[in-house]
Parts: sequence; C-alpha cells; structure tokens
Amino acid sequence: MQSPRLVMLIIETYIFGLKRNSDAVDPASPDYGAPFTLAQAQQHLTASAIGSRITWHRAVPEEFLKASKQKWDVVILLHCIWYFPSSKTLSSILAALHDKVGRVCIAEYALHATEKTAVPHVLAALARGTLESLKGESGENIRSPMSQRAITQIAEEASWRVASQSKIVPEAGLLDGTWEVGSVASDGFIEEVKTHVADERLSLVLQSARDATKAAVADLGAAKVQTMDVWVADFAPAV
Amino acid sequence: MQSPRLVMLIIETYIFGLKRNSDAVDPASPDYGAPFTLAQAQQHLTASAIGSRITWHRAVPEEFLKASKQKWDVVILLHCIWYFPSSKTLSSILAALHDKVGRVCIAEYALHATEKTAVPHVLAALARGTLESLKGESGENIRSPMSQRAITQIAEEASWRVASQSKIVPEAGLLDGTWEVGSVASDGFIEEVKTHVADERLSLVLQSARDATKAAVADLGAAKVQTMDVWVADFAPAV
Repeated sequence: MQSPRLVMLIIETYIFGLKRNSDAVDPASPDYGAPFTLAQAQQHLTASAIGSRITWHRAVPEEFLKASKQKWDVVILLHCIWYFPSSKTLSSILAALHDKVGRVCIAEYALHATEKTAVPHVLAALARGTLESLKGESGENIRSPMSQRAITQIAEEASWRVASQSKIVPEAGLLDGTWEVGSVASDGFIEEVKTHVADERLSLVLQSARDATKAAVADLGAAKVQTMDVWVADFAPAV
Repeated sequence: MQSPRLVMLIIETYIFGLKRNSDAVDPASPDYGAPFTLAQAQQHLTASAIGSRITWHRAVPEEFLKASKQKWDVVILLHCIWYFPSSKTLSSILAALHDKVGRVCIAEYALHATEKTAVPHVLAALARGTLESLKGESGENIRSPMSQRAITQIAEEASWRVASQSKIVPEAGLLDGTWEVGSVASDGFIEEVKTHVADERLSLVLQSARDATKAAVADLGAAKVQTMDVWVADFAPAV
C-alpha cells in the first residue's frame, strides 16, 4: 500500500489541520480571489506548521484524478461544489473517486440560517445562483448552489452513501456572508441583470430577490451580516 | 361632485371596514380560490354589516376604469399586484387613475419577515415567483412579485408619490404563508420545474430555493409557518 495521502479539492482555502501528507488541487488562477489571492492563501498555508505536508496542484480535479495512479485515505471537497459549472462535475468527480479513496468528506453551505443574521446570506446566494444560471458562463463564487439534498442524491447515484453528517454555524470571522450579500446588494448586480436577463418577468423577480436581501439586512439594524450554516458530511462507498 | 365612492381592485378578498359606498373589481372567475371560492368570499362580505356598501364587478381593472366615467375618493390595490401578469399592468392602472381619484392605497407583501416564522414565506414567494416567470402563462398567486422598491418606482414613473407608508406583521390567522410554503414544498413544485424548466442550471437553483424553504420550515420545529410582513402605502398625485 502506498503512503497514505490526503487530497483536498480546494477553491476556497480553509484548512483546519492535516495529520498526513496531502495533495491540494485547485484549478483557479494564482491571482484569483480578494482581498487575498489564491497564491497568497497558498503561500500563507505553506508557511504554516502544516505547510510541509501540502503539495499544491493547479489542475482541474477530474483531470488530476485521471492522470494520477495515486490512492488516498480521504478526499475532501471543501467549499468547492458551488463553484462547479454544473452538477455533472460533482457526479463525474464522485464517480472517478471509486477505487482511489475510501472516504469522501464534503463541506458546503447549507442554504440555511440558524441565526437571523445569516438570513441575508441565504437570500443573496439564491439571487446570485439564479442570475449565474442565466449567464452563458460564470466566473462567480456561486455557479451551482446545490443543496444538501441535491448533493446527497448525486452522491447516492454515484454509489456513495452518507455515513454521518452535521451542521456548523460559522464563527463571525468567516466573511463569505458579508461579501456575497454586498455583491448582490451592489448596483453591479442590477447592471448584470440588465446585461444578461432580457425577459421582463425574470428581471423583475431577480430584482425582488435582491430587494428581499437588502430588506433582510436592514432588519438587522446595527448587527452585522453573518455567514450561513455549513453542512458537513462524510460519505462511504455504498455497499 | 358625484357621491364619493371607494373602488377596490380585489383579487384576494380582505376588507377591514368601509365607511362609504364602493365598487369592488376583480377579474377572477367566481369559482376561483380555495378553501373558499371568490363567489363565497363575496357572498360572505355582502351578508356582513358593510355588505350594502359594496357593488361587485367582475372585470379587468384597466377595462373597468376605461369604461367608467365615475370618480372616486380612494382606490385600494389590495394584495392584487402580485397577481398581475407583468409590471406593465400596474403602470397602466396607475396611469389610468389620474383624474379619477386623489389617492391610491396599496397593500402588498413586503418580501420581508420580521418574525423568523415568516422566513419560509419569503423564500417560497421568491421560488414560486422565479418558476412562474419561466412559464408562458401562470395561474398562480405569485406572477409578478414586485417589491416595495419596484412598486414605488413604477408609481413615481406614473406621477404618484408616497405620502405615507408602514409595515404590518400579520396575525397568525392569515394563512397565505402556510399555503404558499406548502405549495412550494409539495412534490407538485418539482413536477412543474421538470415540465417548464429545460435548463439544468435553472432547474438546480429552483430546486435549491425549494430546499432552502423546506430547511427554514424544519428549523421552526413545532412552531407554525407565519405570513410575511405586509407593506402598506398611501400615494398622492406627484406635484
């Protein structure tokens, strides 16, 4: 058996602790991301106590898997699914992981707000997801906002089953809610609707989704927008 | 001056008190509505203490206005705007009301939930509104879910200005939230998405909007879904 390694398919770079060597795969350009670029985030992690255990790969996950004969203990899909251009990418990665790994861990936004302060993030994610689905190609953070149900269904179709799952209410330091809400509330969102959505009724409902997001923010008063719940699930091969 | 009368453009029939004679206009079929039909609701009101003050008209509001030389003190658009096939209907009614009335009162859902128990209604309204915007023709309650901002903007373009406005948190007896959420959570919604939405990405985000609605309901535990806030506004002719 080869030395156990841990693959992470990362686009958003949160790493909580690695006990073993790992391959980290991300297709994005090194200059992607704000306020820090992907390259800066990777350098930050490489300089950390766990840095020596991470090998970075700039690659499309499916191609990386196809090109490698490596096997791993665990694959983690870490807040990457919503970036996929469609649900087919998830199906295809999960199918490719059989025989390469015994366990798949997924962390993705739950489309649910335990805290009222995270309701604007849920509304913004759906507004953004709807707009992006109407573009030919999207470069946004939310391209395929799959729910827990959708991800589980696709995993089951690819012969994986949920072994365990839970929800996490993120700490205040995670700013994704603030960023996503800010993007939807900005004038730029209206400009994008004008550019990409010719249909008057679809345009109306997208603008209403934006207005609902803004109303939910206004309702918080002095309280800050928080990031919605995260769903974490551990998948095993279906028997 | 003719005897003051009060026009209501009603599709959903809530009447809180009439001090004067009134014309009530609704284009819907008498058998429309559940659990009570429109005809039953109208009979109920006609049998009430204010019944003698209401004259019912089955008519499209714009045509009714065109055909009548009547003037009124007040026109109330009472939870009817979301039923309009597009925002153009609102523009056209508001334009037709100049010279016929000195005041327009509007009550419509605010796309906002003061109470957490009404968050599912906001999510369901946006999910339903998005689905209906993708149909050629809709018979649903939510066809043009215009926000307070959108309605105000259209009114201003038609030379009306907001004189006063406020928000109401509905009492528990108003079941629209329960009905709308039930409709979006039902299997029928998925069937409709399959029938009307060929695009895989739009279908994904609509199903996620439904899942977000269901997650918001599940979060309430034993508490019942409530109806979202109502926005009420009083418009005067722009100077």
